[in-house]
Formats: sequence, structure tokens, C-alpha cells
Amino acid sequence: MEQDERAIRELIATWLKASAAGDTEQILSLMAEDVVFLTPGHPPMRGKAAFAAGQAALKQFRIDATSEVQEIRVLGAWAYCWTQLSVVITPQQGGASVKRAGNTLSILQKQPNGAWVIARDANMLTVVSQ
Amino acid sequence: MEQDERAIRELIATWLKASAAGDTEQILSLMAEDVVFLTPGHPPMRGKAAFAAGQAALKQFRIDATSEVQEIRVLGAWAYCWTQLSVVITPQQGGASVKRAGNTLSILQKQPNGAWVIARDANMLTVVSQ
Repeated sequence: MEQDERAIRELIATWLKASAAGDTEQILSLMAEDVVFLTPGHPPMRGKAAFAAGQAALKQFRIDATSEVQEIRVLGAWAYCWTQLSVVITPQQGGASVKRAGNTLSILQKQPNGAWVIARDANMLTVVSQ
Repeated sequence: MEQDERAIRELIATWLKASAAGDTEQILSLMAEDVVFLTPGHPPMRGKAAFAAGQAALKQFRIDATSEVQEIRVLGAWAYCWTQLSVVITPQQGGASVKRAGNTLSILQKQPNGAWVIARDANMLTVVSQ
């Protein structure tokens, strides 16, 4: 159980590092094929391909994110994870950055090979005035 | 498993009916003691007492909500549930109503007595112009 929690914390750290590096391939390896991303004011984003398309539009920005895990509960081959996430988005070519912060609630699934992936993700970040 | 899914659908229906009736006691019976409600732009709301206090402020409104369950997955004594929720909030004394709509992602827990309760709730509703 402790090992699973550690693996989930590592998944989050890897995700944030890959975001900062713009490494879409690595981020895609951290989610289930049928992943669903839920956000306020937008329809659900379903599947890896939709996520990859969204990432392409982000190429012109640097993404610096920090996450504070509030809770991880492992439920056998599934888990949920609540974090407080803070993201600073800065144009690669310079210009004002935008900070977004808030809570996330994710459902994770353990793959047959033992690796954890994100299966469902609720992102409640809003713009923070700086 | 099918029985658990049915029980969770009934929990949601009961919650919406109790909201419309302003029956805070019944709504409180549908959540865990240590429930956490997550929303955009607000700190987490923790525990039944905080929820009850929030409900008191809503007494002057009628709450009409409809929910479309997108997914329920039962994981033993836990489950997650994704819904599309639509809420119309109308002043009891008359006046313009406000409509909010969006996705929710909830974690549910099966109590020792077999009843399901909401343990964690991510609410991504935003105001819809009518």
C-alpha cells in the first residue's frame, strides 16, 4: 500500500517535470487510453488523442507547476488523489505570465504491469491575480 | 455490483429531492462525517458542520437540480461517480434565477450498514447565461 502511494507521488512529480519540459510523450504515458479530463466551463476532454492535441497548442508556453498532495487513498488496483495545484504559464517568447491555482481530484488505475496512470481528473484551477 | 450502482443512483436522486425541499438533515445523512467538497475559486469545505452552515445561507433560495450520471464505477467498499449536473437557483421571494451547469466527480464510501455516502466531491459548475 505504502509502495503504491509512493508510486502515485512519483507519477505526479514526473507529470510536472514532463510538463515543464514540454515532453508530451512522457505525459501521455502517465494516463489511461480512455482518460477523461473534467474542467469548469468546458466539455469533458476524452482520450489521449484529445489531450495530445491540446498540448500542441501549449507549445508556445512554459508550464511551471507545483503540487501539494492533500490525500492519496489506494483502493486495490484503483486510487484517488486530491492535490492543491499551482501552475504558472509563461509565453516562451517573453511576456506576462498567468498563474492558476486550485484543487484537483483524480482517479488513478494500476496497470497490469504495476504502473499507475491517471484515469479521471477533475481540475478546479482558477486564475490568481498576481 | 449492480445493486451498489443502483444504490448510488438512488443516493443522487435523494440528494436532489432533498435539496429542492430544503431538507438539510436528509442531505447530511448522505455524506461521510469527514466529507470534503472541492470547488473552483474557494478553499475546500471540510466536514458536515461546514456544509450545514453553508446550507443555512441557501434557505432563501429554491434549488432545482437535474443530474445525468455519466459513469459509476464500484471499487469494493468505495466508488467514484461522474455526473453532469445542472442547478437552477431561484430566490424564494421571487426574482431572477441563476443557472449553473457542469461536471462533478465524487468519491463514495459504503458504510458498515451498507448505505453509500459521499466522501469527496469535486464540483465544476459554472454560471450559464440564460
